[in-house]
Amino acid sequence: MKVNIDGETKTLLAVWYENGEVKLIDQRLIPDKIEIFTAKNSDDIYYAIKNMVVRGAPAIGVTAAYGLAMASKNKENMDEAVKRIASSRPTAYDLFKAIDYMKNNKFAESAARRYAMEITARSKKIGEYGNELIKSGDKILTHCNAGALAVVDWGTALAPMRIAHDSGKNIFVYVDETRPRLQGARLTAWELQQEGIEHSIIADNAAGYFMKNKDVNLVIVGADRIAANGDFANKIGTYEKAVLARVNNIPFYVAAPGSTFDFSIKSGDEIPIEERDENEVLIVNDKHLGPAESHARNPAFDVTPHEYVTAFITEYGLFKPEELKNLYSMIQRDLFMR
Amino acid sequence: MKVNIDGETKTLLAVWYENGEVKLIDQRLIPDKIEIFTAKNSDDIYYAIKNMVVRGAPAIGVTAAYGLAMASKNKENMDEAVKRIASSRPTAYDLFKAIDYMKNNKFAESAARRYAMEITARSKKIGEYGNELIKSGDKILTHCNAGALAVVDWGTALAPMRIAHDSGKNIFVYVDETRPRLQGARLTAWELQQEGIEHSIIADNAAGYFMKNKDVNLVIVGADRIAANGDFANKIGTYEKAVLARVNNIPFYVAAPGSTFDFSIKSGDEIPIEERDENEVLIVNDKHLGPAESHARNPAFDVTPHEYVTAFITEYGLFKPEELKNLYSMIQRDLFMR
Repeated sequence: MKVNIDGETKTLLAVWYENGEVKLIDQRLIPDKIEIFTAKNSDDIYYAIKNMVVRGAPAIGVTAAYGLAMASKNKENMDEAVKRIASSRPTAYDLFKAIDYMKNNKFAESAARRYAMEITARSKKIGEYGNELIKSGDKILTHCNAGALAVVDWGTALAPMRIAHDSGKNIFVYVDETRPRLQGARLTAWELQQEGIEHSIIADNAAGYFMKNKDVNLVIVGADRIAANGDFANKIGTYEKAVLARVNNIPFYVAAPGSTFDFSIKSGDEIPIEERDENEVLIVNDKHLGPAESHARNPAFDVTPHEYVTAFITEYGLFKPEELKNLYSMIQRDLFMR
Repeated sequence: MKVNIDGETKTLLAVWYENGEVKLIDQRLIPDKIEIFTAKNSDDIYYAIKNMVVRGAPAIGVTAAYGLAMASKNKENMDEAVKRIASSRPTAYDLFKAIDYMKNNKFAESAARRYAMEITARSKKIGEYGNELIKSGDKILTHCNAGALAVVDWGTALAPMRIAHDSGKNIFVYVDETRPRLQGARLTAWELQQEGIEHSIIADNAAGYFMKNKDVNLVIVGADRIAANGDFANKIGTYEKAVLARVNNIPFYVAAPGSTFDFSIKSGDEIPIEERDENEVLIVNDKHLGPAESHARNPAFDVTPHEYVTAFITEYGLFKPEELKNLYSMIQRDLFMR
C-alpha cells in the first residue's frame, strides 16, 4: 500500500518477515504514527494478535504463518507455539487455516513466505473481480477495515475500490467509524486518504440514514469466518448494515479469500464470537465516555445470515450463498488451499 | 430526578426558572460534573439550545417557554426573540409548540411555568402507561437519552423504566452509546446509575447482535417530531434499531407527549433534518479519532417510517400508528394542547 511518510510516498506492507523476525505495522497507532512492531518469538506473535497490533482475518493468518516459521527456526517447542498462537483470537478462520498450512509444510520459512504471497495475490484478484461490480459515480459503504492493513496489501473489501479508483472511476466511500475500536475512522479512512479516494467518515448510526436516502448504492465488507451455508462473522455491526441494505434494496457483497471459508461448519451458529474487554467501549482517548460505575458488553463480531449476502467476492470469482458448493469444489482442486 | 451530589441524594430538574433567570443542568458536562448554566436573555437561550447545553425535545420546549417569558419580562423585542429561539434547532417539534403556546399566552411567566408543569405531569403519565408494557425480567433496549434530562423530570422512554423499577420489577437496560454525541453512554447511563437501574452500555453496532440473540425483548425510544401518519424523527440511528427490532420480532415503542406530534405534516418526508458540525464525529475527548484530513457527514436525526412502530406511548394512552387520528381528536379536546 502507498504510505506518505514525511512527505515521501513509500510502499509498505502490513506484515513481513525480515532477518528472522516478524515485522508488523502497529495498527493501534494508526493514523497518529507509523511504528513497526517486531515479534521475536511465538509469545510476541500471540501478544500482537490478541492485542490487535495486527488485525483483519487474512493479516492474522499471515502473521501466524510467519510466526510459526520463526518459532520453528528458533527451535521453540512447536506444539506449544501452535497452541499459544491458536488461542490468540477465536473468530477469524484464517488463523486456523494458516496454522494447518504451516503444519502441513513442516513450519518452513519458504512456506510462510508462499502463504503471504498467495494471500496478497488473491487479494488483488478479489480486487479485480470486485472492480467489475463498481461503476463510475458509485457511492459505496464499508464497515470496519478490510483494507491492505487487514491483509498484507490490497485488502479484501477495499481492493475493488483501489482498483476502481486506479482505473479512473469516480467513486465515493462512506466509512462507518466502526465502534468500539474505530477501525473505520482510524484505518480505512487513513488508507483511503493515502490513496486519494474520496470518502466521509460517518457514525455507525448514520449508515441506515444514508442507505434510506439512496446515498449509498453498494455495500462491500470483509469477513472473519464464512460457514458452508454462507452465514458469516465479521466486525460487530456488520449484521445491522446487512439488514439495512436488504430493506433498502442495496446490493451487499462480502469480499474474502478462500482462506476465510470454513466448510467444516454448516452455519454461523457454530462460529465462536469473541467478547472483548468492556473498556474498549467505555474509554476513548484515555477517558471514560460515561459514568465510571457503568459497565459495558463488548462482542467483537456478529454473524450475518447468508440470506442478506448478494454474493461473495473471492479470488475464484463471485459466488451467491447458494453457489458456495461450487466454491468448495474449486478450493478442493486448489493445491495451495487444500 | 434523583442525583447523588457529594454522597447526598438530591432532587434536581433539567430546567427551571428562578429569580427571572432560566437555569439548566449543563448536559455537555454530564457525567463528569454537575454544573448549572444560567440564561439571562434570549441570546443565552439560543446558545443553550443550539450548543446542546439542553437537549431532548420536551426539555427544549420548556427551555424556550421559560426563555420567552424571561425575554418578555426584560422587555426584549419579542418578534426578534421568537425568531432567534425558533432558529436554534430545526427538528424537535416541541420547540415550535412551546413558542406557539407562549405566543397564545402573551409570553406570561405563569404560562411558562404551567407549560413546564404540564410537560412534567404528562411524562409521568407516559411512564405509567409504559410501565404496563414492562414485566419483571424484561431486557429493554433504548437509544440516545429520553430521560429526565430530556424533559424536566421522569423522561419519555425512561419514564416507564423508572416506574417499573420503583414498583419492584427486575429490569435490565441495554444502553446504545449513541454516537456521535454519546447521549446514551453519557446521559442515559448516568440517569440509570443514579436510579440504581441495572444496565450495560453497548456500541450502537452491537444492538443488532443482542436483538438477534434474543437478549432484548422490548425497545423503547423517544422522539423529536412525529408526523400525522406516525413517521417520526429521533436521534440518528433510531431508524437502524427500529428495522432490526422488526426483523427480530421485538416490539418497538416510541414514548412522547402530545407536544411532539406535528399533525400539520402528513409524513416524515416533511421533517427537516439537522446536519451538525463534522467535528462531533471526528473528535472525541479533544482528539481526532482518524486522519486529520478526513471529513465526516453528521446528520443528527433520522426518520423512521411508521410501519416499524408497534405503538406510541403518550399521556393519553397507547396508539398504534393507524390510530393516530384518535390521538389527534384527543389533543384537539385538550385545552392545554390546542
